[in-house]
Amino acid sequence: MDLSLRQQDLRDRLIRVRQFSEQLCQPLEPEDCVVQPITDVSPPKWHLAHVTWFFEQFMLLPQGHEPFHPKYTYLFNSYYESVGDRTARPLRGFMTRPTLKEILAYRHHCDRALLKLLEKAQGSEVLDLLELGIHHEQQHQELLLTDIKYILGLNPLFPTYRTDLKGSVEHADLVPQEIDSGLQKQSHPPFNYIPIEPGLYDVGDRGDRFCFDNELGRHPVYLPGAEVADRLVTNGDYLAFIEDGGYQQFHHWLADGWDWVNRTGAIAPLYWHYLEGQWFEFTLGGLRSLNLTAPVSHICYYEADAYARWAGHRLPTEFEWEVAVRLQGKGARSRDRGQNPDNPVSDDAILSEVTSESAGFVDGDALQPMPPQPGDRQWFGQVWQWTASAYLPYPGFRQAAGAVGEYNGKFMADQWVLRGASCATARSHARLTYRNFFQSPKQWQFTGLRLARSRPA
Amino acid sequence: MDLSLRQQDLRDRLIRVRQFSEQLCQPLEPEDCVVQPITDVSPPKWHLAHVTWFFEQFMLLPQGHEPFHPKYTYLFNSYYESVGDRTARPLRGFMTRPTLKEILAYRHHCDRALLKLLEKAQGSEVLDLLELGIHHEQQHQELLLTDIKYILGLNPLFPTYRTDLKGSVEHADLVPQEIDSGLQKQSHPPFNYIPIEPGLYDVGDRGDRFCFDNELGRHPVYLPGAEVADRLVTNGDYLAFIEDGGYQQFHHWLADGWDWVNRTGAIAPLYWHYLEGQWFEFTLGGLRSLNLTAPVSHICYYEADAYARWAGHRLPTEFEWEVAVRLQGKGARSRDRGQNPDNPVSDDAILSEVTSESAGFVDGDALQPMPPQPGDRQWFGQVWQWTASAYLPYPGFRQAAGAVGEYNGKFMADQWVLRGASCATARSHARLTYRNFFQSPKQWQFTGLRLARSRPA
Amino acid sequence: MDLSLRQQDLRDRLIRVRQFSEQLCQPLEPEDCVVQPITDVSPPKWHLAHVTWFFEQFMLLPQGHEPFHPKYTYLFNSYYESVGDRTARPLRGFMTRPTLKEILAYRHHCDRALLKLLEKAQGSEVLDLLELGIHHEQQHQELLLTDIKYILGLNPLFPTYRTDLKGSVEHADLVPQEIDSGLQKQSHPPFNYIPIEPGLYDVGDRGDRFCFDNELGRHPVYLPGAEVADRLVTNGDYLAFIEDGGYQQFHHWLADGWDWVNRTGAIAPLYWHYLEGQWFEFTLGGLRSLNLTAPVSHICYYEADAYARWAGHRLPTEFEWEVAVRLQGKGARSRDRGQNPDNPVSDDAILSEVTSESAGFVDGDALQPMPPQPGDRQWFGQVWQWTASAYLPYPGFRQAAGAVGEYNGKFMADQWVLRGASCATARSHARLTYRNFFQSPKQWQFTGLRLARSRPA
Amino acid sequence: MDLSLRQQDLRDRLIRVRQFSEQLCQPLEPEDCVVQPITDVSPPKWHLAHVTWFFEQFMLLPQGHEPFHPKYTYLFNSYYESVGDRTARPLRGFMTRPTLKEILAYRHHCDRALLKLLEKAQGSEVLDLLELGIHHEQQHQELLLTDIKYILGLNPLFPTYRTDLKGSVEHADLVPQEIDSGLQKQSHPPFNYIPIEPGLYDVGDRGDRFCFDNELGRHPVYLPGAEVADRLVTNGDYLAFIEDGGYQQFHHWLADGWDWVNRTGAIAPLYWHYLEGQWFEFTLGGLRSLNLTAPVSHICYYEADAYARWAGHRLPTEFEWEVAVRLQGKGARSRDRGQNPDNPVSDDAILSEVTSESAGFVDGDALQPMPPQPGDRQWFGQVWQWTASAYLPYPGFRQAAGAVGEYNGKFMADQWVLRGASCATARSHARLTYRNFFQSPKQWQFTGLRLARSRPA
Repeated sequence: MDLSLRQQDLRDRLIRVRQFSEQLCQPLEPEDCVVQPITDVSPPKWHLAHVTWFFEQFMLLPQGHEPFHPKYTYLFNSYYESVGDRTARPLRGFMTRPTLKEILAYRHHCDRALLKLLEKAQGSEVLDLLELGIHHEQQHQELLLTDIKYILGLNPLFPTYRTDLKGSVEHADLVPQEIDSGLQKQSHPPFNYIPIEPGLYDVGDRGDRFCFDNELGRHPVYLPGAEVADRLVTNGDYLAFIEDGGYQQFHHWLADGWDWVNRTGAIAPLYWHYLEGQWFEFTLGGLRSLNLTAPVSHICYYEADAYARWAGHRLPTEFEWEVAVRLQGKGARSRDRGQNPDNPVSDDAILSEVTSESAGFVDGDALQPMPPQPGDRQWFGQVWQWTASAYLPYPGFRQAAGAVGEYNGKFMADQWVLRGASCATARSHARLTYRNFFQSPKQWQFTGLRLARSRPA
Repeated sequence: MDLSLRQQDLRDRLIRVRQFSEQLCQPLEPEDCVVQPITDVSPPKWHLAHVTWFFEQFMLLPQGHEPFHPKYTYLFNSYYESVGDRTARPLRGFMTRPTLKEILAYRHHCDRALLKLLEKAQGSEVLDLLELGIHHEQQHQELLLTDIKYILGLNPLFPTYRTDLKGSVEHADLVPQEIDSGLQKQSHPPFNYIPIEPGLYDVGDRGDRFCFDNELGRHPVYLPGAEVADRLVTNGDYLAFIEDGGYQQFHHWLADGWDWVNRTGAIAPLYWHYLEGQWFEFTLGGLRSLNLTAPVSHICYYEADAYARWAGHRLPTEFEWEVAVRLQGKGARSRDRGQNPDNPVSDDAILSEVTSESAGFVDGDALQPMPPQPGDRQWFGQVWQWTASAYLPYPGFRQAAGAVGEYNGKFMADQWVLRGASCATARSHARLTYRNFFQSPKQWQFTGLRLARSRPA
Repeated sequence: MDLSLRQQDLRDRLIRVRQFSEQLCQPLEPEDCVVQPITDVSPPKWHLAHVTWFFEQFMLLPQGHEPFHPKYTYLFNSYYESVGDRTARPLRGFMTRPTLKEILAYRHHCDRALLKLLEKAQGSEVLDLLELGIHHEQQHQELLLTDIKYILGLNPLFPTYRTDLKGSVEHADLVPQEIDSGLQKQSHPPFNYIPIEPGLYDVGDRGDRFCFDNELGRHPVYLPGAEVADRLVTNGDYLAFIEDGGYQQFHHWLADGWDWVNRTGAIAPLYWHYLEGQWFEFTLGGLRSLNLTAPVSHICYYEADAYARWAGHRLPTEFEWEVAVRLQGKGARSRDRGQNPDNPVSDDAILSEVTSESAGFVDGDALQPMPPQPGDRQWFGQVWQWTASAYLPYPGFRQAAGAVGEYNGKFMADQWVLRGASCATARSHARLTYRNFFQSPKQWQFTGLRLARSRPA
Repeated sequence: MDLSLRQQDLRDRLIRVRQFSEQLCQPLEPEDCVVQPITDVSPPKWHLAHVTWFFEQFMLLPQGHEPFHPKYTYLFNSYYESVGDRTARPLRGFMTRPTLKEILAYRHHCDRALLKLLEKAQGSEVLDLLELGIHHEQQHQELLLTDIKYILGLNPLFPTYRTDLKGSVEHADLVPQEIDSGLQKQSHPPFNYIPIEPGLYDVGDRGDRFCFDNELGRHPVYLPGAEVADRLVTNGDYLAFIEDGGYQQFHHWLADGWDWVNRTGAIAPLYWHYLEGQWFEFTLGGLRSLNLTAPVSHICYYEADAYARWAGHRLPTEFEWEVAVRLQGKGARSRDRGQNPDNPVSDDAILSEVTSESAGFVDGDALQPMPPQPGDRQWFGQVWQWTASAYLPYPGFRQAAGAVGEYNGKFMADQWVLRGASCATARSHARLTYRNFFQSPKQWQFTGLRLARSRPA
């Protein structure tokens, strides 16, 4: 069989990605796969079905395939108005059927059909859709992990997702122990800053390989000059904010943020527990002592912003963030302010250059933000980093026609851009120009922050 | 080993009842056992655990047993304030752990301990608690069935609970068919009435064998004279109300009921579906054509009351209902107005006399209200019957001390008494004097109605 | 002009009642007349208009009168579905127009038309409607006072409604003063009890003069024997409950009541304020030191029930209450259990016999429950008394045809009967058989309690 | 008395502005001044008091003045956390006291104190605060008008605020009339576009006279090239969107916008009414036939964005908007891309150049957006124009210390910038660089839109 190189590559990635989603659910009990404790958190088996529906709906049905089941379109559509009615989002968690087993059968049925379709695929349109579908499934792999964490984390039994992760614990030992109290109070390293000179910089993706429509269009922006921290804010840094009364003092907070504090009674990041006089953190590897040198995570925009104000700094814009990465990458050093149009250094080269071995999400990882290796600035692979930029279209943004056009553009209101990638992002899914986006109060993703400051005039 | 007769009897019942609860969950997938789509509906695995917790909490722990798991008290307490904190009721459906399997292990552990305890039980207190526990578990068996029905019934796939029930269907055939439209329009039998002369009647339980505290205390009531229908209102009867515009005309409804209609958009009982020009009903045996001669079920108080007004009648009080049963039973015929204090006919004799073979809930039954056999007036075994009586204490009602006292008395506000027993009530759990109670808008139980009318002055 | 006696009497009462409603609003500022801080509390100017609408709708329009304003029917209908659409109840408080002045013009216009209509009235139907309208307006006079109290009472400035009431204060003096702490701790008189022998008693109204449909139909009830306290529970009694931790101990409360305590954070009756180490009570005469010997008021059913449990008693049923009044009235003393059908003592005679001079609501009164005069058992004229009876139809209850039939019957679900009359009830509006009704959590009426207990078997 | 020039100027403005606020409330009845039908809409008398509180709190109290009333600080603080507790915002509308009259007394008391203070004022700090207070009151004058409109507009009687406004009607004549249907269907003028070349432009305020902190800091931005329409979108334009099914087709809408449409049932801008086959618009001058050539108003961001998408355009960013005004002003024509740092043309000169005589809000105006005079591009004085820019800090933004710092900065999340000024903005309050801001779903302000489009690459 004579498959083109791209066909072959996508085939391999399709198989790997499809298998990996199921692998992520292997440690779960069927009971874990059903529930939706908050609207944001979808049932694991819904994720497994929805990503399959995406392939079936946009690739198989247009080719004349019969639907696997006449009602699955209704059950597993997420938000595509073009495709018709669907289960109201908050009701996903009450659909006990189809069972996990039946959904796996649905997956395998569609997998076989997709591989056949791929063999005889003509033209790039089908391959483009397949690649989109692969990235779509990778996005849902990250959601699978964060949603599983939420489901297990609200259970008073604190169940462990996987005991073979770095640092996993079978049962949290909450009996007062010989705590090295120095550990919880230890000093944290200073922040160093990457300077950005005032001037014009190019940002955005050139579009020479896959990216989402919302990051497309390399274009100039004027930056007034700033400094971006070369490390993430850690749990230890954040604890100092808490201990300084950060959650009790309105003047660190946005008005909406202060309302959020009062409404929710928040006193710390999601998953932090103060037990027996000590801070613990629930992780996919169980409940553990808070690791003070690891990046802080599961904070919402309000918390990120409040921390930055308290620290006398601010969040970087998404453009400052992107330019700082480019400047830090070796390839960028020779460029004049990063905007040399003839620059031969690709974004992918920069990405791989600034990303440490330990970053990104592959099997065997911690599935939890970890302290940096020497020299690692943790742009990618630990936490998504809230930026000070609202999620808005780039100049010349065009929504694709049809249902696929509903992917990104219709969410461009009242959300923030997050940059980087987290410990739950598939490594092959990270991109230098990736624009993730969430609303201000969301905490359930692996979200943290990096400080920035304006340069003195 | 020499067990007393009562010990032996309770031992047998305990074993049977405990096994039966698990048998009820056998047709379920683990996924079905987790969710709580509305606050009223608890997850099946929660029921299995909670009834076990009841035995552990009130029988095993006081005897010095170790708790099976230190957090199960918190997880599986329903509403006993005396016992301490508990999972907020609306959150039961997010507790994916312990799994069904772990809960079965909990059950078997406690079963063994209970049987041992029973062997050496001294005095009636332990046996009384055990009997209460058995009845408590039988109550939850009914809830298990109604909650399973709700969970499956909201699924667009309409899954079948058991295909071996009377009248089960594998898949509802919704393709327009040769409908015998006569069937859906057929005339229904006339109502005959059991007359109650004005006078004093004794009601309530004598307390000579197990009953709940709320039905205790045989006492006189004065009845002004009434007539109680000798059959239940059927689906066919109720359809006539619907087709007459019953849900569109405010004057049939209580003010709160009319608000309920407008708020919920109700146009028919729960589980009725109008598909392809025909009425269907979701049952534990799947989606079926509406059976017009079966008793109407899954209506709330507002609907029962509105139907009765539309029909020019009213609901019976709980006393009229009880007296009518006594009058109808052979034993009552010789009595002067049912109040002969020397009446040798026991309530249990009357109960068994007025109950047809087909009534009540045993394995192999329909688990759905069925048309009456000739001569069966369906007092018991089809639907709980809304009465016009608010759920209030009988004269001299006394709440037991301690946690067991929280069983009934604290709910005596803003609920209605329902009498009889449904197709999901364990046959050995039904009693002539049983007082079930629910709030006005509840539909998810097998609830129907029987008409009554005042006698002309 | 020769008016019949009844015509003349109704004419006089109409004029007095209509004037009195306006007099009640005289101390208000126009601003006070608009708002609706909770759904239960209607704007004073809405009351003034709605009672007028009642006369216009049911008396003037059927006689061919032009509506005063084409939209007033929509604006001032309360809950009469028969009459058509109406302003949603929670929106009444945003209707700033018509102004108070315009509504007074509407009133006077209709007053003139009514008086003319009355002159030429033929037959009793018109007169019956007029009498109903007068009583309807008297009901709203009570609501006017309780709603005004609520509107002023939530204002941090604690405005005084009238400074000429008994005990009024211009400004509460909250500066710590020489408090006679003995006063707040003083012992309260013992409870004496009126015994009711077991037996049949007649209750309800004979219908020989005006009463509402819900109290109609003198009929026998069997009472099992009880004792009803000869005085109301006072603020001092109730304070003992509070100080004993009553609001912190679940076992005194109904399940719904305990939820209510936790949801609302209630720690005392409505309008009680603990300021500067002392209890105050907001009254229509301003904020005053709590009067420990006055009847407790503004408690909901849950509080009344919890107090009674804490005290080891219970609430009387509405029948026990009515029979106790009859027994206490001299006229009843000669009766055998109050059921002598030839009893010549009318309900009105009993009412006037048991009602002290100070009871009921006339101009110059305190508009606040007051300590009893010697010998006064305060059945009427201080607080409505929660009973243990659900609000249900009497035997043979018939709803009137048409809109007037919506007056009472459609509310017979999930409410409690209150008996007596309060300090805000017009004296000529009180009746021995009067059945007032409210839902469990309502506190904004002048509602208190009287204890009862079952007799030892 | 020898007052400095600035003192004299501020004194005059203070007197004028304070009087004008009261003048705005003159046509109101006291009843209109109390209510708060939605959280956004504050009671008119609250506005009158709050602006006074602002002067008292920040100018008089620090100078040692006694508070006029000890509780007014609590009652009339809006959102200043620094100042302490305050009435919860949604409860403002239940505070019937102090009355309008009492609030006017409060105003006059503070006016006298302010004038005295101004006489002996030393240094610019006091004068700066006074100027801020004047602008603060002007902002609330706009809110007064929009809130009055909302209060009157929800009343089924459609009361007229002022009958002496241009185009006022005493009573809307809804009787079907000789409608010039051509009028409602007439063609609307074409859009012409002001081109913006790609390049760097300076935006923001130079700070050489009063402006808010959020517009401060003239700074360069890079614009990729765009065209901005030279006229506003009219009611006629917008009607074409409605008639084309705009509110029924999801693909014009942001995801949140489509939710908003479905949740609210919106089918047209706020205040539009379809009566007797014709579109009407509620205005401060009463209910009128929709003026098709006037700018559309009272649309939320979702509607503005949906209209622009439907029209194949987009909203301008706030920078494109500002640059287009500068380019259109004569002073800008000689500039190279508007960024000549030596440009002698001040922002105020441009503002006055591009603003027609009819624009802005002075007594005798229409208080309703009006069709343009020839040559008037209506940048200012008709409607605030939604931009595609999120409300975020300018580079180097610094929040002032203390309570005054809570003015703008803490709202920089999840809101949009609106530019221009409306028919309810005081003319002396408009500025070229003014940044107004509201959340996406707000409709109650005079908000409209102006189209833009990117230039072809």
